[in-house]
Amino acid sequence: MTTMSSGTPTTLPTWHSTPLGAALDRATGGSYHEVKRELIGRLPLDALVRDHGMTMEEAREWTRRSARVVVDAGMSATGFPVAQGGLDDPGRSCVDFEVTAMADLSLTVKGAVVFGLYGGAVNALGSERHREEFLPPLITGAHVGCYAMTEFGHGSDVASLETTITHDPETDELVVHSPTPSATKTYIGAAAEDATIAAVYGQLVVGGEGHGVHVVLVPLRDGTGSALPGVTIGDNGHKGGLLGVDNGTLTFDQVRVPRRMLLDRFGGVDADGRYVSDIDSDSKRFFTMLGTLVRGRICVATGSSAAARKALSIAVRYADRRRQFDRPDGSGEVLLLDYLAHQRKLLPAVATAYAHRTAINELVDRLQELHQLPEKDQVAQRELETRAAGLKALSTRFANDTIQVCREACGGAGYMTENGLTGLRADADVFATFEGDNTVLLQLVAKGLLTGYKEMWGDLDTRGMVAASARMVGDQVIEATSMRPLVDRLVAAAARRSPSETLLDRGWHLAMFSDRERHVLETLAARLRRAKGDAAFETFNAAQDHVLLAARTHMDRVVLEAFVSAVDACDDPETRDVLERLCTLYALSSIEAESGWFQSHNRMSATRAKAVTAQINRLCGELRPVALELVEGLGVPEAWLGSAMLVEDPARWTPGATG
Amino acid sequence: MTTMSSGTPTTLPTWHSTPLGAALDRATGGSYHEVKRELIGRLPLDALVRDHGMTMEEAREWTRRSARVVVDAGMSATGFPVAQGGLDDPGRSCVDFEVTAMADLSLTVKGAVVFGLYGGAVNALGSERHREEFLPPLITGAHVGCYAMTEFGHGSDVASLETTITHDPETDELVVHSPTPSATKTYIGAAAEDATIAAVYGQLVVGGEGHGVHVVLVPLRDGTGSALPGVTIGDNGHKGGLLGVDNGTLTFDQVRVPRRMLLDRFGGVDADGRYVSDIDSDSKRFFTMLGTLVRGRICVATGSSAAARKALSIAVRYADRRRQFDRPDGSGEVLLLDYLAHQRKLLPAVATAYAHRTAINELVDRLQELHQLPEKDQVAQRELETRAAGLKALSTRFANDTIQVCREACGGAGYMTENGLTGLRADADVFATFEGDNTVLLQLVAKGLLTGYKEMWGDLDTRGMVAASARMVGDQVIEATSMRPLVDRLVAAAARRSPSETLLDRGWHLAMFSDRERHVLETLAARLRRAKGDAAFETFNAAQDHVLLAARTHMDRVVLEAFVSAVDACDDPETRDVLERLCTLYALSSIEAESGWFQSHNRMSATRAKAVTAQINRLCGELRPVALELVEGLGVPEAWLGSAMLVEDPARWTPGATG
Repeated sequence: MTTMSSGTPTTLPTWHSTPLGAALDRATGGSYHEVKRELIGRLPLDALVRDHGMTMEEAREWTRRSARVVVDAGMSATGFPVAQGGLDDPGRSCVDFEVTAMADLSLTVKGAVVFGLYGGAVNALGSERHREEFLPPLITGAHVGCYAMTEFGHGSDVASLETTITHDPETDELVVHSPTPSATKTYIGAAAEDATIAAVYGQLVVGGEGHGVHVVLVPLRDGTGSALPGVTIGDNGHKGGLLGVDNGTLTFDQVRVPRRMLLDRFGGVDADGRYVSDIDSDSKRFFTMLGTLVRGRICVATGSSAAARKALSIAVRYADRRRQFDRPDGSGEVLLLDYLAHQRKLLPAVATAYAHRTAINELVDRLQELHQLPEKDQVAQRELETRAAGLKALSTRFANDTIQVCREACGGAGYMTENGLTGLRADADVFATFEGDNTVLLQLVAKGLLTGYKEMWGDLDTRGMVAASARMVGDQVIEATSMRPLVDRLVAAAARRSPSETLLDRGWHLAMFSDRERHVLETLAARLRRAKGDAAFETFNAAQDHVLLAARTHMDRVVLEAFVSAVDACDDPETRDVLERLCTLYALSSIEAESGWFQSHNRMSATRAKAVTAQINRLCGELRPVALELVEGLGVPEAWLGSAMLVEDPARWTPGATG
Repeated sequence: MTTMSSGTPTTLPTWHSTPLGAALDRATGGSYHEVKRELIGRLPLDALVRDHGMTMEEAREWTRRSARVVVDAGMSATGFPVAQGGLDDPGRSCVDFEVTAMADLSLTVKGAVVFGLYGGAVNALGSERHREEFLPPLITGAHVGCYAMTEFGHGSDVASLETTITHDPETDELVVHSPTPSATKTYIGAAAEDATIAAVYGQLVVGGEGHGVHVVLVPLRDGTGSALPGVTIGDNGHKGGLLGVDNGTLTFDQVRVPRRMLLDRFGGVDADGRYVSDIDSDSKRFFTMLGTLVRGRICVATGSSAAARKALSIAVRYADRRRQFDRPDGSGEVLLLDYLAHQRKLLPAVATAYAHRTAINELVDRLQELHQLPEKDQVAQRELETRAAGLKALSTRFANDTIQVCREACGGAGYMTENGLTGLRADADVFATFEGDNTVLLQLVAKGLLTGYKEMWGDLDTRGMVAASARMVGDQVIEATSMRPLVDRLVAAAARRSPSETLLDRGWHLAMFSDRERHVLETLAARLRRAKGDAAFETFNAAQDHVLLAARTHMDRVVLEAFVSAVDACDDPETRDVLERLCTLYALSSIEAESGWFQSHNRMSATRAKAVTAQINRLCGELRPVALELVEGLGVPEAWLGSAMLVEDPARWTPGATG
């Protein structure tokens, strides 16, 4: 491995200090890699990295000013149609989110709410005239939009929202109303201080009949910033993080807007006051509308991934310069990263960060691919939505856990705000529960799998899940597993080898992951089918841990296959050698974490289980010499880390060192 | 289990709303239970629960004012000798810490630094004259002391501190000096704004000869609050939490203090300028001094435990009133706590919180017991220090993980500062790395075990560990395991039962835990012995994960045995029945988490592993009806939870509910 640190000469992107780091970044940066490089080089960093010691008021003001920078950089328009001044590139808009997330998450989330969620709703749920009227002022910053979905009473259960949007045939207006205290919209980003207009989710009532959840645009504030008549705006106040985002509450008291304010692409009210929709079923229409959330979830995945990679970049760099305790032979103090326990904390996490990154790249590409299809492919779309939900859950869990590990790996220094980890941790925290609570999203993944994406997956409740599995046919589950020729080839090759050779064999890893997925899914399906017709809560509830496991095993397989494909696509031998080791480290770490399952299901012997642990330790040792290159390859420039301890005089941290 | 909710009539402590909750609290509150009750009833709650939305400046001012309340309540004196106005009750001082921690952690940590660490150093490392001169002004608040151990260059490795304390025979003074940038003291609680005097750790040099680390008292500020000549005070600024604690840096430029300022109980300078000590070995003296840290570590364990129990109390109460998604039969929305996945998140954690609480109670009692011995018992003292280190590591890890689970279990509401979870999480975070980094502490536990507490365990470096294991004799390890007759009896009884009966059998749980500990320790000892004489870094480092595993398995066993003893001491049948289930849930959850190990070491069959998971699910269902009682039993009064969502109008959270 000593050859690794030299590397093949390449044209360096500006910020990488090592050729190998640059090559790793290129190999795993996805199809938008050059876009990211260009953005990194162009964005004014000073305006984008926040001091996390700011008060809430200061942070909000800072975010407001920095959002202007994002708008000026043209990032507010990328996801919108060309006709409205955009690039019509949803994939690119996810990448903008990722790059901004490497700088500051308050800024990123505020932008995501205004342009991604509000703007996305106008774009995806509105008609051409909505896009023409409402997108240009949004892109220029004349409008500040917010996305008013969640209520105190209902968050995950969007179908049960209580806000009403009632058509008044007398005036041909829509009356937006919060009938109960629990109908108050809450946690609405940008509502507390800035938003001038809201995309409000509520139950559409036309001619006395309910048509389920629809979205209407409601102006919130007048030119002076005061709430318009009938609108009551509250402030959620201080939060556990994202202090720059002004989350607030909205209550509507019979607020009237013209009928044209309804985003009516999938359902609306005609001039005669009749409800009209191309989609017959209320449920299908609802889930088609919710499907537009997919981009938001992909963005959260990219943002979490960026946050985790940033934290790992800080902690690994620190561990590669910080020393503690003498070597027994008196030859000086030991670098933290030379301790096995420290390698174990950080290096498998680095490998996982690579794995997630490749899976997210695929997701972004797929989003763009499906967007460009002339005709919507419903099954492919639902598969994308399922993967987005799953990867959002996986990557936010990973980010929360990993940033915390990084904070602790830096000791007391890690707790100081100026060193960049605690702010990151606090900001990323909420990603686990917003844009879909992780537990709910994993259930949704399982449902997608059980139905082979043939059913609308949106029914998140018990009834939907049990009913879906009852309708499911025998071998449908198999279809859900891999269809990559590369994977089939590797698995087949592994089956021909002797057990003693297979520990490093990619085919064995892939087989372990997919075999586990198939077993968990098949037994889940059988279990739910046995309860056929019995839609009782208890049936589903007793299997809930099995449901969640099925989702996780599926996503683990998806991630591994994405990583394997990315490695396969790399043709520089040295870079590929490092990627192969990272991929093995990711695969074996996952197998070790699930060692109990693999043994109790006779997929792995006791001897093999112990060998896996020993091999992980060996891999940590092999990768340790290129640790700096590994974190450079994660794509977060050193200058963006915002960590005082990494730029201070080294003599402060290490006796005798000089700057 | 339906009988559980009624409970045996008892005299209720003021705050419990259920007899069972009160009984559980009493059964697991330890020997200081009445002291806690009395404190809870007496302390002015309004002054002790902080608004976590405060700025750093506001939080520091609030903490300063609230610390006055603690002093007025007599809590500053409990750990000090009667002669100086104290209760001479170190156990009680840990309990004061625990109760304060249930209210606010900034307040608790500030008090712990000033009275526990600085005051503790004066008390334990000083002579009678130091106690007479320095404790009374501390107890009254005239002095504010700080504890200046950590430097930028060295935190865990205290022996390598660079600050020097040099005796000048000309003037009979001690010269305190920071020779390098890395010698600057940092993260020193109370240093930035308040401290008037510091207990400074540094290398004592007498007559040109070094005698290792000693502690000297150095006045920091004059009457106006300005730094004294030669003292440079810095401010660590904003942190990831504990904003009320003013951590700062201290640099000394040849600062002179009289010789009498040296805390010289274990080593000092006589009037002739000669170094004198009753302890011959520098190393032994150093570790005797460090042994005084034991109380601080027990306090951190009690504080983490309190924080985790508070978070669980919030999340369980919320889950027991929050509904989301309809029941399939249309009978209304489902309470979060009725979902298996939600039970799985919270109830095993509740069981673990009980387990830790009982183990910490034992530790506090043992501290007090050993303190009262007329003659120091060195082996018992080292065993206590080992357990304190281990339990500190376990309970801080558990607190960080659990508070985060609780935050996520409350969804968006959990992220709002006013609901009490994110502030708790931010404050408790640093517990994982202060008062001894958890990884370092676990190594120390392993070393104590390997040497049967016969060696000084303080050598935290490689050399010490390898050397100790080389000297270790064959069967010493066995001694480290249990010596409780109750445990022996239960294990023996289990061995006589058939495998099918044992899943709920306490003896089987105990045997699993102790067998695992013994195996891990024996194989570690053998591994290190094979490297006898070879003190190379690589030898130790390759075994570091094994070392940490040994420490954890030992502590797991210690915790289970403490819980089993507490259950055994409970003679109310209904309370005991619930405690038995909690204890089983704790034991099985631990076995499930380590299922990979147990199977790969042939301690558990595949069938049994699956049965364990099923049994955990059953136990969650059995305990769910008494969930409120369970969290009342955790001992944190509802009024202390500081969670807005628990006191708001229920109609806000649940459609149709009324307050």
